[in-house]
Amino acid sequence: MEKRIAVLPGDGIGKEVVQGAIEVLKAVGERYNHQFSFTFGEIGGSAYDSTGVPLPEETINICKESDAVLLGAVGGPKWDTIPVHLRPEQGLLQIRKELNLFANLRPTTYFASLADSSPLRKEIIEGVDMLMVRELTGGIYFGKPRERREVNGKEAVVDTLYYERDEIERVIRQAFELAKTRKKKVTSVDKANVLESSRLWREVAVEISKDYPEITLEHMLVDNGAMQLVRNPKQFDVVVTENMFGDILSDEASVLTGSLGMLPSASISEEGPYLYEPIHGSAPDIAGQNIANPLATILSAAMMLKVSFGLEEEAEVIEKAVNKVLDAGFRTGDIMSEGKTRVSTTEMIEEVKKAL
Amino acid sequence: MEKRIAVLPGDGIGKEVVQGAIEVLKAVGERYNHQFSFTFGEIGGSAYDSTGVPLPEETINICKESDAVLLGAVGGPKWDTIPVHLRPEQGLLQIRKELNLFANLRPTTYFASLADSSPLRKEIIEGVDMLMVRELTGGIYFGKPRERREVNGKEAVVDTLYYERDEIERVIRQAFELAKTRKKKVTSVDKANVLESSRLWREVAVEISKDYPEITLEHMLVDNGAMQLVRNPKQFDVVVTENMFGDILSDEASVLTGSLGMLPSASISEEGPYLYEPIHGSAPDIAGQNIANPLATILSAAMMLKVSFGLEEEAEVIEKAVNKVLDAGFRTGDIMSEGKTRVSTTEMIEEVKKAL
Ligand SMILES: CC(C)[C@H](C(=O)O)[C@@H](O)C(=O)O
Ligand SMILES: CC(C)[C@H](C(=O)O)[C@@H](O)C(=O)O
Repeated sequence: MEKRIAVLPGDGIGKEVVQGAIEVLKAVGERYNHQFSFTFGEIGGSAYDSTGVPLPEETINICKESDAVLLGAVGGPKWDTIPVHLRPEQGLLQIRKELNLFANLRPTTYFASLADSSPLRKEIIEGVDMLMVRELTGGIYFGKPRERREVNGKEAVVDTLYYERDEIERVIRQAFELAKTRKKKVTSVDKANVLESSRLWREVAVEISKDYPEITLEHMLVDNGAMQLVRNPKQFDVVVTENMFGDILSDEASVLTGSLGMLPSASISEEGPYLYEPIHGSAPDIAGQNIANPLATILSAAMMLKVSFGLEEEAEVIEKAVNKVLDAGFRTGDIMSEGKTRVSTTEMIEEVKKAL
Repeated sequence: MEKRIAVLPGDGIGKEVVQGAIEVLKAVGERYNHQFSFTFGEIGGSAYDSTGVPLPEETINICKESDAVLLGAVGGPKWDTIPVHLRPEQGLLQIRKELNLFANLRPTTYFASLADSSPLRKEIIEGVDMLMVRELTGGIYFGKPRERREVNGKEAVVDTLYYERDEIERVIRQAFELAKTRKKKVTSVDKANVLESSRLWREVAVEISKDYPEITLEHMLVDNGAMQLVRNPKQFDVVVTENMFGDILSDEASVLTGSLGMLPSASISEEGPYLYEPIHGSAPDIAGQNIANPLATILSAAMMLKVSFGLEEEAEVIEKAVNKVLDAGFRTGDIMSEGKTRVSTTEMIEEVKKAL
């Protein structure tokens, strides 16, 4: 198989962690006789520094000509004072729109070997296996108007939560499709007791569920969702929600199992390419020190193999290698605990390659 | 002191838990020579059943003529199918507007005797002492337009997040005032990398902080806030945020210490009366069985004594009585654990009265 992969390292530790994914992909490619080629593009603060914008045309073109996109992370205090529309995060928001990445998929997995670094008690998180599906190109992130106003001589401000029915339909349908291959439960999270958009969301969820009689649909209010994630995360299989609620809940979910530095994500579109990235940020405080955890990005590469290229076996080989390395006690600083062996970013990458 | 208290039991367990607060207030009144009089009003589903609306005029009048309002809880599946604008929760939203309750104050406290019922590990929650200040009468809860639309022949929907600068100012100022009497730190939560309203929010927070040089202001993005609450809740003192973010984060915060059935809240206005209620819901599944936990409502009464009436000592007597009862091992079902003594709602109320 020949595949072109766009690589956007971004800022902070981005460069260090995508390096891990590239090396692991190359190793797997050699073993299974696939040709993965890598084309680099700029995004975020570093793109702003060299081109004046956080998402240059050229990067968009590189992505569109690729079969999949691998992103590191964007952002950092260095760009806190530039105009909002040029900040690193805008690059991220723009690429989502440019590539129509309407659904963000975030698995939250329990790693037995990391249970000790979770803030939750072991019996609460043991066996958690949840997939958050977040709408990614609509809602209050992009709705208009979004502006300051003068109202009766007073300063006011407005943001707009806007959805078209199609946008809601496709992401909820996606959630049901994913639930088919899992525990066959979809929890749709909304705020239907307050928001009109949530009422439409709920209607659409009910409608789509009729096409999936084998799947259980449950509705949950977002405030209750934020509680239930902490109280009893095992109750969830697939969770689907709109953009802003998903931003909040998926970050909440990501800390439950104590493995934030371990969690990959995929953002998918109708036509491809899909984008893969670790869910952690650019961690500018530890950038360039060769201590960042590359495992979330390596697992994002595994997700790419499975979801974009249909290479289930190759993906599993990576996942197993990561587990082996953890079981063997290797840890970067973020997941370090007593009695384990602390390794650098590059050492961790080497260990995963050896374990493949 | 003579004080008129409006009592709105609402639905589900509401009646049972407000009864506890009333009895405790009476007992404290006798001891300290205060006259508390109680006037009952209807709200929520039971108000709808008897009057056709979830917040009758009469209830509004009773509240406005009182010095403070004590609310039980509203809602239940019984009213799931009536038109949205008549549902129980609308009574709650309306009374907030009618009484200008612009700030909702929710303490999250650690009860050593309940640590075992927390989903979090003891070292994470030990000593948590946080006060969430949520804007309560603005934002996407009330902004207009909020409607279905046809856009280019497609069904669409819109909700509006709207704030005037004054609304943001008064709630943030309130947070700073509260921080003065606590650990002198305010965490302002927003989504300034995406929302225009959050950018104004942040500006206002910075501006107001200039009047409080002794208080540390910290900004936190809402997604990070949702993570930090679970990872390290001890870092927080006063947290202030807009209505929807506050709805989500304050519910998340409420489960951290394992004492959801223990947590009171106050909603305050510029002119009074203020409203006090437990943060738990109406729990229709256990209503009428005399097993609900009345302690959150009893602690709400304590908050009323302190915040509305300035009766610090009397409030403390109640808080100490609650702690004594917990230390003595009395538990309602929701906080029951091995080796403790299970009691009914009315027995728990008696124990608190004895311990006063
Ligand atoms: C950086 C920011 C704009 C972004 C978002 O809110 O979507 C981030 O928090 C994320 O979840 O990917
Ligand atoms: C019932 C509902 C409208 C309400 C809210 O969202 O404000 C509730 O969740 C609360 O937090 O008091």
